[in-house]
Amino acid sequence: MSRVRMHNLSISLDGFAAGEPQALETPMGHAGQRLHTWMFDTAFGAAMMGRAGGSDGVDQAFAQRFADGIGVEIMGAGKFGPSGWQDDPDWRGWWGETPPFGTPVLVLTHRPREPLVLDGTTFHFLDAAPDEALEKAREMAGGLDVRIGGGADVARQFLAERLVDVAHVVQVPIVLGRGARLWDGLAGLEDDYDVEVVSSPSGVVHLTLQRRA
Amino acid sequence: MSRVRMHNLSISLDGFAAGEPQALETPMGHAGQRLHTWMFDTAFGAAMMGRAGGSDGVDQAFAQRFADGIGVEIMGAGKFGPSGWQDDPDWRGWWGETPPFGTPVLVLTHRPREPLVLDGTTFHFLDAAPDEALEKAREMAGGLDVRIGGGADVARQFLAERLVDVAHVVQVPIVLGRGARLWDGLAGLEDDYDVEVVSSPSGVVHLTLQRRA
Repeated sequence: MSRVRMHNLSISLDGFAAGEPQALETPMGHAGQRLHTWMFDTAFGAAMMGRAGGSDGVDQAFAQRFADGIGVEIMGAGKFGPSGWQDDPDWRGWWGETPPFGTPVLVLTHRPREPLVLDGTTFHFLDAAPDEALEKAREMAGGLDVRIGGGADVARQFLAERLVDVAHVVQVPIVLGRGARLWDGLAGLEDDYDVEVVSSPSGVVHLTLQRRA
Repeated sequence: MSRVRMHNLSISLDGFAAGEPQALETPMGHAGQRLHTWMFDTAFGAAMMGRAGGSDGVDQAFAQRFADGIGVEIMGAGKFGPSGWQDDPDWRGWWGETPPFGTPVLVLTHRPREPLVLDGTTFHFLDAAPDEALEKAREMAGGLDVRIGGGADVARQFLAERLVDVAHVVQVPIVLGRGARLWDGLAGLEDDYDVEVVSSPSGVVHLTLQRRA
């Protein structure tokens, strides 16, 4: 059975996966790039940005798992574009003509449109509840795993319904004060998930939440 | 110059230093003892509970710093007793006749009363802002350090005013969902504090926030 995984979901000490406001020029709000500096500093992140080099320690070990064995990503509307992108028929996502996914992506939105075919990644738009979206994703994944790509709302919904098998969350030592909270509505998560933590010399903490059998 | 320190302040993944409701029978609310199990499992915690044994690794290394070089503790009214203790002239704190402080304690309350002298610990009651309370505490500390004992509200206030030199926060891998938040109002704390993190085999993460010179 293919697994449902989350990777590299970065949050602040106070649990925000993005700042605010999230807009065209500030997709992560006032958080800027601070939640993801740890990732850009890895070899994985460097390659994503078209640079050479990058760290090759524990941050890299976690970061590089992003694509391994993944057949489909599910993302929320808020990850695909700034608020209101559904009104712009020409919006093609944040990532240019070669998105970093390399698999089909299911975008959850109440206003679906025709699939968008880009280089290596096709975006499919779906108005569906998490369990329905997951069923669709599994059909498309061809036996590979499904990645829940975020943002925070989608991550929370899938975790709340215990649909995620393994979630990698990265806690960054900053306090954002406002934004999109990951943990809201997830009280008691530890009853269903084992939580492993390891700190990195970079200053982040990697949390691995693994659903109990 | 004596320093202002916090030790063993335990929070959940979602940043709550206590659950709710906090009442006579449930001082930590629905969190119960779960935020402090890591500490009770150390040699320091065992001794506090009158037991032998206890772990002697990284959790102990942090826990035992609680009393070292401390001359006074400042605590909030909510740490001294359940809501409404000010109406009970016989309330003597949670800790029986031998509280685990061993120093004078300043209890911040809008309804001060006469000092309460117990075995090794005298409680003084003060209606004062954080900076005033700190000035008073330093006078009483005789050159030793001042510990901010919590709860979450008092910890937040002293951190917000940058009055704390070093804060040891312990993040426990549970999601409480509600209670007393530590991080609220502390956005940008990382601009004034260096944050070091280390994970423990027990599953907790020790954060050390040290104010920049």
